[in-house]
Amino acid sequence: MRCAILGGAGFLGRHIGRSMSAEGMEVWSIDRTPPQNEPAPWLAGEVQADCFDLSSWWDTVGGADVIVHLASSTVPATASEDPVQDAQTNLVGTLRLLQALRQKGVQPRLLFASSGGAVYGRPQFVPLSETHPTMPMGAYGATKLAIEHHLRIEEALHGLPCRILRLSNPYGEWQRPYGVQGVIAVFAHRALRGQPLDVWGDGSVVRDFVYAADVGRAFVSAARHTGPSRIFNIGGGIGHSVNDIVRTLENLLGQAVERRVFPARPFDPPVNVLDIQRAWDELAWKPAMAFEEGVAMSMQWLRTVP
Amino acid sequence: MRCAILGGAGFLGRHIGRSMSAEGMEVWSIDRTPPQNEPAPWLAGEVQADCFDLSSWWDTVGGADVIVHLASSTVPATASEDPVQDAQTNLVGTLRLLQALRQKGVQPRLLFASSGGAVYGRPQFVPLSETHPTMPMGAYGATKLAIEHHLRIEEALHGLPCRILRLSNPYGEWQRPYGVQGVIAVFAHRALRGQPLDVWGDGSVVRDFVYAADVGRAFVSAARHTGPSRIFNIGGGIGHSVNDIVRTLENLLGQAVERRVFPARPFDPPVNVLDIQRAWDELAWKPAMAFEEGVAMSMQWLRTVP
Repeated sequence: MRCAILGGAGFLGRHIGRSMSAEGMEVWSIDRTPPQNEPAPWLAGEVQADCFDLSSWWDTVGGADVIVHLASSTVPATASEDPVQDAQTNLVGTLRLLQALRQKGVQPRLLFASSGGAVYGRPQFVPLSETHPTMPMGAYGATKLAIEHHLRIEEALHGLPCRILRLSNPYGEWQRPYGVQGVIAVFAHRALRGQPLDVWGDGSVVRDFVYAADVGRAFVSAARHTGPSRIFNIGGGIGHSVNDIVRTLENLLGQAVERRVFPARPFDPPVNVLDIQRAWDELAWKPAMAFEEGVAMSMQWLRTVP
Repeated sequence: MRCAILGGAGFLGRHIGRSMSAEGMEVWSIDRTPPQNEPAPWLAGEVQADCFDLSSWWDTVGGADVIVHLASSTVPATASEDPVQDAQTNLVGTLRLLQALRQKGVQPRLLFASSGGAVYGRPQFVPLSETHPTMPMGAYGATKLAIEHHLRIEEALHGLPCRILRLSNPYGEWQRPYGVQGVIAVFAHRALRGQPLDVWGDGSVVRDFVYAADVGRAFVSAARHTGPSRIFNIGGGIGHSVNDIVRTLENLLGQAVERRVFPARPFDPPVNVLDIQRAWDELAWKPAMAFEEGVAMSMQWLRTVP
């Protein structure tokens, strides 16, 4: 079984690739960025290409039985800055990919990484189940949701087997600490260097974090799923506040960490936690990594980062 | 008050323009097709331009207080044939329009014609209220829904006042009888010429039809709306079966009409009717035209069409 990971050179791509390979799949990474220095011995190969342009990688890889679609040119902040570019690249790009698969007459299973933090919008109840209304609050979520609908339609009209994984906030080794996403990596990296942590409000805001290797196992299960559902929340299942994260870092470091407190941001929902019961029922998946241990893994890796 | 109708040269654009003008607005039509031979004396002017390219019409019109967005390059069938083109033109086009308004620093009220027949998907209950889940079954509905989300987000983040009108199946004068949409116009035109009507299944499939001048009044109300909702179903409020339509035509013609019966299409939901209570509550709008009278108006106009 051959698996092509679109956006495979990134943090999550590495974890998913390693999990897929551990299950005996031949795993290729397709990414627009050149292969990293970091070795990925579990890969059969890496292709530098436009993920959305099937002709630029399909034959090189030798075709795929499973496509893991992690490719995105944006994060929530950049998508809101330029919604035209976000829709153009990510939505239209995905539709071009679907069109090319259709024209080629091939039907690999497509596993799409959607966002449990972005497609639901402000929670009407928590934990958020897959049936919660979808009212994205930014362009990033609107694009993810539009792709989800198009995948459902593609399967209904043309038979392409699709599974949608709505991820909460993945963290773990290889997550870069310099981005606007990934609060655990950013905090851990700063704490390791004795720099203060920026906290908005009283730190009580609760989010759902999931260890990236657990996400990798979820993709393995989704690649083999035969049940009725098409959309799965993949999260930690319980929430952690910003204060929890800081306390966990302090425990691991054995010392207090300085905070810089800024006013609370009114647009931050106070709690956002995913209901992961469906993933357990149909994918026999639940997260295995304890939070403190996962943060320790992150931190251990971050010690190697300049 | 100046109103620019994007896609103003079409069937619905004419009705909405006439209604807006009757309420004292200065109405401009923007359309990529050249001005029609059919006179439209209620218009202040017609501009042949790319509706989505604000710079190509905004200054000519002198700016707008209200934009009625009817522009679409597709119908459901053509959108399904080429989802890439549909998203590219209509979704990305609308996002370009929003971006240009933002950059210009202007905030006209934007009234968007969405589709009550396409955004909900297979009805889980009827009549379909605005809170019914949105599970479009084709690319056309997926694009309409994505535009809806982006308009909601644009208002929330940047303040552009938006209203979304989910139309059922408009019919009336000026609806062309040669398209793949508009069963009333197609049937009436054929019946007038003694040609048989194509019916799938037993003709019991029920749809919601709304007279186009009633839709025009709904846009007038939406231009002035100050209530809390942003999405409104605009439909006839009661359903009519295909058999109802044929019987109505037979009554109006005073003679039987031949039918050609084809197998039922399994993907046709048996009933699709919109709940229009919210439009009554907040827009003080309900349809005024009786069905048989509206069909008679359509037919009267179709007599003038070759």
